[in-house]
Parts: sequence; structure tokens; C-alpha cells
Amino acid sequence: MTAMSEDLLHVWIAELESLLRRIFEANGVSTENAAILAANCAACERDGAHSHGIFRMQGYVASLRSGWVDGRAIPAIEPAGSSFLRVDARNGFAQPALAAAMRSLLAAVEATGVAVLAMRGSHHFSALWPDLEPLAARGLVALTTVAGQACVVPPGGRVPVFGTNPFAFATPVAGAPPLVFDFATSTMSNGDTRIAAREGRKVPHGTGIDRDGHPTSDPNAILDGGALLPFGGHKGLAMTLMVELLAAALTGGSFSSEVDYSTHPGAETPRTGQLLIAIDPSRGTTRVYADRARNLIDAVRRSGASRLPADRRYAVRAQALEAGIPISRAQLDQLAALAE
Amino acid sequence: MTAMSEDLLHVWIAELESLLRRIFEANGVSTENAAILAANCAACERDGAHSHGIFRMQGYVASLRSGWVDGRAIPAIEPAGSSFLRVDARNGFAQPALAAAMRSLLAAVEATGVAVLAMRGSHHFSALWPDLEPLAARGLVALTTVAGQACVVPPGGRVPVFGTNPFAFATPVAGAPPLVFDFATSTMSNGDTRIAAREGRKVPHGTGIDRDGHPTSDPNAILDGGALLPFGGHKGLAMTLMVELLAAALTGGSFSSEVDYSTHPGAETPRTGQLLIAIDPSRGTTRVYADRARNLIDAVRRSGASRLPADRRYAVRAQALEAGIPISRAQLDQLAALAE
Repeated sequence: MTAMSEDLLHVWIAELESLLRRIFEANGVSTENAAILAANCAACERDGAHSHGIFRMQGYVASLRSGWVDGRAIPAIEPAGSSFLRVDARNGFAQPALAAAMRSLLAAVEATGVAVLAMRGSHHFSALWPDLEPLAARGLVALTTVAGQACVVPPGGRVPVFGTNPFAFATPVAGAPPLVFDFATSTMSNGDTRIAAREGRKVPHGTGIDRDGHPTSDPNAILDGGALLPFGGHKGLAMTLMVELLAAALTGGSFSSEVDYSTHPGAETPRTGQLLIAIDPSRGTTRVYADRARNLIDAVRRSGASRLPADRRYAVRAQALEAGIPISRAQLDQLAALAE
Repeated sequence: MTAMSEDLLHVWIAELESLLRRIFEANGVSTENAAILAANCAACERDGAHSHGIFRMQGYVASLRSGWVDGRAIPAIEPAGSSFLRVDARNGFAQPALAAAMRSLLAAVEATGVAVLAMRGSHHFSALWPDLEPLAARGLVALTTVAGQACVVPPGGRVPVFGTNPFAFATPVAGAPPLVFDFATSTMSNGDTRIAAREGRKVPHGTGIDRDGHPTSDPNAILDGGALLPFGGHKGLAMTLMVELLAAALTGGSFSSEVDYSTHPGAETPRTGQLLIAIDPSRGTTRVYADRARNLIDAVRRSGASRLPADRRYAVRAQALEAGIPISRAQLDQLAALAE
């Protein structure tokens, strides 16, 4: 790492991965799983996805130390049809379970044109785009979604039913990196709400409700007995409902409202389920799919759209790969302490 | 039909279907295709989905008379993998092509756990929920989406790139009819914008832009050289982008911005593509999927949610099945004229 100022260092991705791997291993994660989780978390930090980067390490560690999640879990792959894979993450993190199922998933798509991966008993504590980018890089179209921990009320409701329930989609694009979008179906992600609270910033009015059910712009009121709302009104409600059905009901995982870690003080990672669908787009069209995707994206840019999903991520990534990932000394000290 | 007042009649669904079938047949649609389209349009009117009910018949007829769409098209089903069906609607309407592919689709889901139907060269001029409700009634989870005709700009953009690009999802629910939602990924559907314009109503500010790119609440300004916007800001943009990629790029259909019926004056039906994914949810969970869906929906209602997608549709349907579909004499006269 290179010192840029007294406070801000620039850390190479390999250095950060190595540090994060040591933290995971020091907290009961197997060598194999630690490598996967460290790469995932470092990639988020590298791309400027701060709410899923090193900011999350404290939560990973607290969850592991509480015994809530099994860092040594060995996932079980259960074929349930030639296009359908059931995966039991066995109370481990989702990413190692996805990695374990990847070869079967790719084989199923190649054999039949599409495959569904239905995972249960999994903890997903990161962004979704890292799960899909490798699939799109192989020429597949993919979507995925996970449930969370209940912190979102339906419009007009008072009791949280939904997680922030992110939804992600990825596509190959000719002559460009994959286009991957990944958004919370709530007005704001939990991570961003917590960052706003920590930094003393207001959020847009109506982002959520306070404990009395009134719309608020205070992130603390949302986090402390209040709730977030779905984005986009009733359409967003439909989306978050779909996420619970796909990621929890269809996988055999828990609904967001069923996640109860009160018996494990410190636990933060939601144990629910994840659904992933991968499609071979070359089956659908006689034209070259990635060329068509490129045509569309070019048309959107020509229309005057200021930016597209993932633009910022790739720009930040390019900078980080050239100059290192900017991390403060204080943050690095905090991380180092977690490795002890 | 029963006269309720001088202006409002109550028409039984079978009577309405029969009238609509005669209109389609009188305008060059084959007997088989006419029955399918009439049932679809009558079901929309029955359920109070007015923007896709008899309001659309003028557009159907004008499109048929212009020669833009082939009412006698015989779709071609092209298997492209054991879970992948390619369908060429051959410039016909989407519903007869879906009906033709239904048996193969169901067989593929039963054999493999999931199936993708990728349709091109199709005209979809109706709601999407009628396409999915029968699948959910058979215990399947399904989603579908179609591109449209370019009338939606990306935020910050000026040139329409997207259609109103609806997205629909359906799930079985234990002890209840299927839950089906179906929404435009634009702020408002084209049909509703046209109805607002016809009735001289304003729409919410920011529903779209006028021809100079300024946000407007005037539906006429949106329709006359302006454009709609995606719902929910950048998240809605991501959704509508996904719809174009799935429904057009992946199917081999035309993008919304490629639909050009200037050579066929009067034509209104967008010729693009449709993607449908059907999943057997029993593959994913050892619990009974429909029971779990019911648990979730009960929790949403207990939370205090005022209403769920499809609640209104089923309520209106029940009334129409009992007392007939309320239609004005003037509307019936207009319909009768189309059958001549």
C-alpha cells in the first residue's frame, strides 16, 4: 500500500483480499470459504460499493462470533430436474454455496437453455452484482434475488414484512463489460440507511416511516422502531412481494419476517434464501444477442441518459486497479483488530 | 343483456365475447384466433381493466385493416433446447401464439423444472395478467414481459427508447385465486395516458416530459411529441432496460424504438417480442409452495396493507359474473359498427 496523506492510504486489491481472508479465517471461516468471501467483499470496496465493502466486516465478524452463521459450512447440491438445482447452504454464506453449484448450473444451462438455482439456509450479506457478473461475462443473461431481514412495510402497513429485497440482472454487451444492475426494492438499502445515520445525514422524506407510522426523513427514526418503504409505491410493493416469493417461498428459505436472531446477540446476517435464473440468450435469437444488447445501450446513451447502471462501478474499479483502493488508516486499523 | 338505465347496460361475458369475436372475424381474423382474442379482451373488460378492454377494439380493427398485423397468422413453434421454446408469431397477435405453444411449455416445465418461451414477430395489445393467470392456476410461478412502441425516455434523455414495457408475475396461493401483478415500467401505461387525455384529466407532475423535455402533468403534451418516464427513477430505468433485453434482444424481436408502422396508417399494435418464464415451484422446497405464498400474503394483509395487486380485479370480476359487465349503449353501438 502507498501512503497518499496521513489519513488516506491506497491499498492494492490483493493486499485487501489477503487482510480480509485473515479476518475471516481468524473468526472461524474455513480456508476455502474465507477466500471466496474476502474476494467478494474486496471487490465491493474496489468498486466503490461502500455499503457492501469493508463497512460490513464488523457485521460478518459479529455474526460469526455469535455462532449464528457457520463459516465452515459445506453446501449440499441437490439436483431437482435437468434445469433445476436445489442448494442447501447449510447455514453458511451464500457465496461459497453459489461457487459450489456453479459448474452444475453452467452445465444445466448448456444442456437445456436455462437453469434455476434455488438456495435455502443461506446468509447473503453482500451486493448481488458480484454473483451475476461472472455469468454475464460467459455470455449468459441472469437474474437473482434474495430476501433479507424484515425492515420494510407495505404502503399503508405498520409491521415490517419485507427485507430490502434486492433484485439484480446481468447481460453481456458486445465490446463492453457486462451490464449488471442491482437495486434494493426498498427506497434505500439497509446499509445506506445505516451510513446516513452514522454520518448524521437526512434521507428523502418518505424513505420510510417512524415508529408511529409517520413518513420521516430521519434515518435513525427508520432504524429505531420505524421501517423503510418499497420504492415506487405499489409497483415496488409488487416487486418486493415477488422477491419474497422467489427467494424464500420457492427456495424453502425463511421469509424476511421469519429471520429471528434474538438468540444470537451480535448476529447481523439474514438467513433466508436466494433464487438465481441463468439463460442462454443465443437460444432465443438468430442474431447475436450481445450485439443487440450493445445496440440498445448505445441508443439509451444517444437519447441523453446521464448514466447507466454499473457505469460508476466500472469507473471506480478502473481507478482502483490503477492506483489502489482508497482506505483510511483508521479503517485499516479497525480491520487489523478484527484479524486478532 | 339487461338494461339498468337508459345509458348503462349489463352484458354477460359470453355475449360480449361473442360480439368481439364477430368484430375480429369481420376484420380478417381467423375463427380460431378470433376466439382467443375475444376471450382475452372480454376478460379485461370484465375485470375492470378498462385500458385493455373494449377501449382497445378500435385499435385492433384499425391495425388489422391497415394490413400491419396478420389476423390469420399460424405461429411456428421452434424447440431450442429441452427448457427453451422459440416461437415465431409470424406477424400475428401474441395470444394465439402463446396458446399454440402452451402444451409444449407445460411439458418442458414438467420435464425439467423450468421453461423459457421466447416469442418474436408478435403483436401484444392487451394486459399481461391474462397470459399468466392460467399458469398460476396450474400451480406454476411465472413471469412475462413485452416491449412496446417507443414512448418512454430514460431520465435525463430526450429521445424515446423504451415502450411502456409491462412486467408481470403470477403465483399460486393456497385457498385463493392466483396472485397476479402486471405493471407498466413507465410511470403510467399508454392506455391510461390516452384515457386521461380523452377525459381532460391531468396526470401527476413528472409522469412525463413535453416536447421540449420539461416535466409535465398534461397527458396531451406527453402524447404529442413528449414522452413518459420510467417509474421509480433509476430503478425503473433498470427495469425497463431489462424488459427490452428480455422481450426484444433475447427473443429476436424488435426493440420498441425499431417499431415503425408509418407505412401502415392506422396501425397501433406494437410488433416486438415477448419473454415468458414458467417455473415449477415444487422443485425448490420440501414445503408446500402455495401454503407458503398464502402465509406471506396473510402477513402483508395483517401488516395493514390497504390492498394487494389483483384484489380490485377479482372483486370487479365477481360482480361482473353475477350482474354482468357494465357497458354503455353508446359503447355497444360503437362496437356493433366495428363488426360490419
